[in-house]
Amino acid sequence: MLDQLCERLGAGAILTGDDVAARSVDWLTGTPCHAAAIVRPGTPDELAETLRLCHAARQPVVTHGGLTGLVHGTEASPEELVISLERLDAIEAIDPVGATITVQAGAPLQKVQEAAEAVGLQFALDLGARGSCTIGGNIATNAGGNRVIRYGMMRQQVLGLEAVLADGRIISSMSPMLKNNAGYDLKQLFIGSEGTLGIVTRAVLRLQPAMPDTRTALVACPSFDAMTGLLTHMRQTLGGELSAFEAMWRNHYRLLTDVSGRHAPPVGTESPFYVIIESQAIDADRHGARFDQALESAFEEGLLADAAIAQSDAQRDGLWAIREDIEGLVHLLSPLMTFDVSLPIGDMASYVERVETTLQEQWPQGRLSVFGHLGDGNLHLMASVGSNDADTRHRVESCVYAPLAELDGSISAEHGIGLEKRNWLPISRSPDELALMVTLKQALDPHGLLNRHKVVTCAAQDEH
Amino acid sequence: MLDQLCERLGAGAILTGDDVAARSVDWLTGTPCHAAAIVRPGTPDELAETLRLCHAARQPVVTHGGLTGLVHGTEASPEELVISLERLDAIEAIDPVGATITVQAGAPLQKVQEAAEAVGLQFALDLGARGSCTIGGNIATNAGGNRVIRYGMMRQQVLGLEAVLADGRIISSMSPMLKNNAGYDLKQLFIGSEGTLGIVTRAVLRLQPAMPDTRTALVACPSFDAMTGLLTHMRQTLGGELSAFEAMWRNHYRLLTDVSGRHAPPVGTESPFYVIIESQAIDADRHGARFDQALESAFEEGLLADAAIAQSDAQRDGLWAIREDIEGLVHLLSPLMTFDVSLPIGDMASYVERVETTLQEQWPQGRLSVFGHLGDGNLHLMASVGSNDADTRHRVESCVYAPLAELDGSISAEHGIGLEKRNWLPISRSPDELALMVTLKQALDPHGLLNRHKVVTCAAQDEH
Repeated sequence: MLDQLCERLGAGAILTGDDVAARSVDWLTGTPCHAAAIVRPGTPDELAETLRLCHAARQPVVTHGGLTGLVHGTEASPEELVISLERLDAIEAIDPVGATITVQAGAPLQKVQEAAEAVGLQFALDLGARGSCTIGGNIATNAGGNRVIRYGMMRQQVLGLEAVLADGRIISSMSPMLKNNAGYDLKQLFIGSEGTLGIVTRAVLRLQPAMPDTRTALVACPSFDAMTGLLTHMRQTLGGELSAFEAMWRNHYRLLTDVSGRHAPPVGTESPFYVIIESQAIDADRHGARFDQALESAFEEGLLADAAIAQSDAQRDGLWAIREDIEGLVHLLSPLMTFDVSLPIGDMASYVERVETTLQEQWPQGRLSVFGHLGDGNLHLMASVGSNDADTRHRVESCVYAPLAELDGSISAEHGIGLEKRNWLPISRSPDELALMVTLKQALDPHGLLNRHKVVTCAAQDEH
Repeated sequence: MLDQLCERLGAGAILTGDDVAARSVDWLTGTPCHAAAIVRPGTPDELAETLRLCHAARQPVVTHGGLTGLVHGTEASPEELVISLERLDAIEAIDPVGATITVQAGAPLQKVQEAAEAVGLQFALDLGARGSCTIGGNIATNAGGNRVIRYGMMRQQVLGLEAVLADGRIISSMSPMLKNNAGYDLKQLFIGSEGTLGIVTRAVLRLQPAMPDTRTALVACPSFDAMTGLLTHMRQTLGGELSAFEAMWRNHYRLLTDVSGRHAPPVGTESPFYVIIESQAIDADRHGARFDQALESAFEEGLLADAAIAQSDAQRDGLWAIREDIEGLVHLLSPLMTFDVSLPIGDMASYVERVETTLQEQWPQGRLSVFGHLGDGNLHLMASVGSNDADTRHRVESCVYAPLAELDGSISAEHGIGLEKRNWLPISRSPDELALMVTLKQALDPHGLLNRHKVVTCAAQDEH
C-alpha cells in the first residue's frame, strides 16, 4: 500500500515513523499522532488516486487540516492512514468583479483573508486560530467565529466546492456563482460533515466589500435582560453594521482581569454581564457618530451600566484580548474542559445558572467561565473541576449537556462532534434524524473508510 | 386508498373530479391539473399519515405549494396524487429577540413578510410572486429574488426545518439557532431539491433588522464594462447597504418603454444597458446623501450616462415596474419562452451576444429580452420565435443552454429543474455529480414516489 503510494506520489509525499509521532493531533493536550503514515498529496488528482488505492484495499483514512479542532476529529489509530492537505495550499484565482476567490483546501484562513484584502475586499469568516486553521477544515466543520452575526458561518461563504468521495471519484461543483439551482446542491453534503462523507480539495469562496472603519466597545450590563435588550437595540440602531456581540459572564471577565491580573479591566468588575460590541462600516466619521450615539441611547435606557470605547487599534486589541485569552484560560483552569453549546437566547441565563449549580453541588471547588457569541445563540463554557479522567469528564458533560434536551439546544454550535461528542448526539437529534445521518453515511461511504467512528458509525464500521 | 385517506383526514380534505381539473398547475399556460385527487392535510401528522399510506401502496405523489413555479415542477398525471400544503399555512410563533419566525410550509411569503414587519423586523426574501408563492415552495426551490445580493437565497434564511420522508417518517430539525453543528445538517437535503427527497412541513426562518429607508435609481450605462464597474463601485461605496442591482439589456428596456408604450422611459433609450440600483439603510438623511454621492462619483468616472432617482414611493414603484412587468412580456412576446441562467459576470456580455446571434440566424423575426440580477450572476432571457412546439422549444433551449457548458454556467440560477430542464442537466453537472444525485434520491426515496421524474430519475421510476 505505502509502496504503491510512494510510487505514484513520490517518496517525499509520505511521512512514517518518528515524523508521524512528532505531530500532535490535539493542540490542547499535545497527544501525538498514532497513524501508520501521513500521506501528503500535491494535487487533487493525487488525493483522488490515494483514495482509490485505499478504497480498493479497504484502508481507513483520517483527514488532517490545520489541527486546531477541539473534538478529537483528527485522532488516528495505528491501522489508519492520515491524509494531510498541507501541500494543497494554493490560492488559485481571485476575481474582484465577481467577488470570489478560488482556493485549495489546505490554504490557511489568514492567507485567504490577506489575499482578499489585497484586492480591496474581505473574506468574512474570522476566528482565533486563523493563522493555523485551513479552509478545508473550516468547511468540513462549518466553522463559526466572531462575525457570524453579520455574515453567517462558513457554509454561507462557500459558492463552489470540490470533494473526493471514499471511492476516489472527484465531485467537482466549482461554480463561482451566487446562484445555482441546477439539481441538488451537493456541496452542502461536505460542509459540516467533518470529513466523513468526502474530503474537500478545493473551493470557490464568496468575498465581501471591505469595511475600513471598525468601532469597538466593551460594556457592562446590569442584568441578562438588559444584555438581550442591548442586542436588540444595537441591531435596530446599527442595522446591518453590527458585526460582533460577544457576551462574557462575570466569572469569565473577573477571572481574566481582577483574579489573575492578566488584563486591566476596562470597566468595573461588579456587573453580572459584559459585552464586546463591534460595528464595521465604510464611512469613518458618520459611522463613529452612529456608534457612539447608539451606546449613549442604550445607557439612557438602562441597557448598559458602563462602556469603554476603543480609541485606537491597540485599545481594540486590548478589549478583544480579554475575550480571546484562551491561553490564560488553559493556564488558570487546568485541567480544562471546553464546551460549545447553542440554545435560544431567552433560555441562556437560567441554563447557565443550572449548570453552575449542578457543577457546584458535585465539585464545590470547581470553576466555570462562560462567554460566547450571544447574537448567534452560542455559548462557550470552560469548566475545571480538578480532574480530567474519563469518568469525571462524563459527569461534567452530563451537567452541561443534559439540560439542553428540553431547551431544543445543541451540544455543538460550531466545534462539531468528532469523537468527543458522538455519544451525546441523541441530546440534540431525534432517532429519525440519527437514522437519516447513517443512511447518508452508508450511501456515500458504504465501507466506512472516512474518519471512522466520528460523528456517526455505520454498519461496515461495526464489523471492524 | 382515497377511502382510507377520507377516513383519516376527513372528506373535506380530499378534492376529486372537477375540483381537481379546476386547478391550474401552470400560471403561464393555464394547464389544468390531471391528478387522481388532491389531498389537503391539516397538520404535519396528517401529512405524514398520508405519506405512510401512499408508501405502503407505492402510490406516487406530487407536492403543491403556491403553483407559481416556472419549470413544470407541479405537473401531475392521472395515476398520481397531489398533496397540497394549502391548509398548513399558520404562522406558529415569532421571536423578536432571537429574530426568528416559525411557520408552516403553506404560509404565503407575503404573510410572513408582514408578520415580521409587525414586530419591527423584516423577512429578507422577496420576489414578484410574493402574494401567492408559499414558504414551502420557496424552500423546496431555494428561491432567489431581488435581495440575494445582500441577504442570500432562501437557503440562507432557513434555520430549522421539518420534512416528511417518502415513507412517512417526520424529520424534525426545528432548531431556532443560527449555529448548530450537531451532526449532518439534514435540512440542506430538502432545500432546493424540489420536493424529490421529502416534503417540507414547517420551518424556523431567520429575520433581519428592518431597513426603513430605501433609495432607488434607474441608471443608463454606456457599456457592459461600465455596468460591471458600477457594480464594484456601488459595492465599495455603499458597503453592505446595496440591496439590489438589477440589470436590463436595451432590448428589454426599449420593449417596455418606447416600443410598447407601456411605461414612460425615466432616462433616454439610447444606452446599451440599464440598472435599477437599490440601497436600504436605517438612517434616512445620511443614507440619502451617501446614495446620491455614490451615483455622482460614478457619473464622474464615466460608469453611468444618466440617472433617475426616485423621489417618492410612487416613483420607486414606477422604476421597478419596468423591470417586473412580466404581464407585459407575456403579452408582447407571445408565445413566450422563459430562461433563468447564471454564469460568471465577466462572460455575460459575450454570452448574450452569442445567444442573440444564434437565435437571429434561425428566427430572423424572433425577439429576445434580457434582464437579471447582475450582482448574483443571474440572467433571465425571454425569447419569442413565433412558435412554441416541442421541436422549436428544444432548438431555442439549445441556443440558450449550449454556450453555458464551456463557461461553467448553470441552466438554472433560481427557477429549478422540474421536468422542463431535466434533460439539459448534463450541461451544468458532470456525470459523477449526476450519479451522486441519483445516489441521494435512491437513499431517501428508494421507490421513487416523490415528484417522479423531476430533477432526477431513479431506478425504481424507470420500472414505471
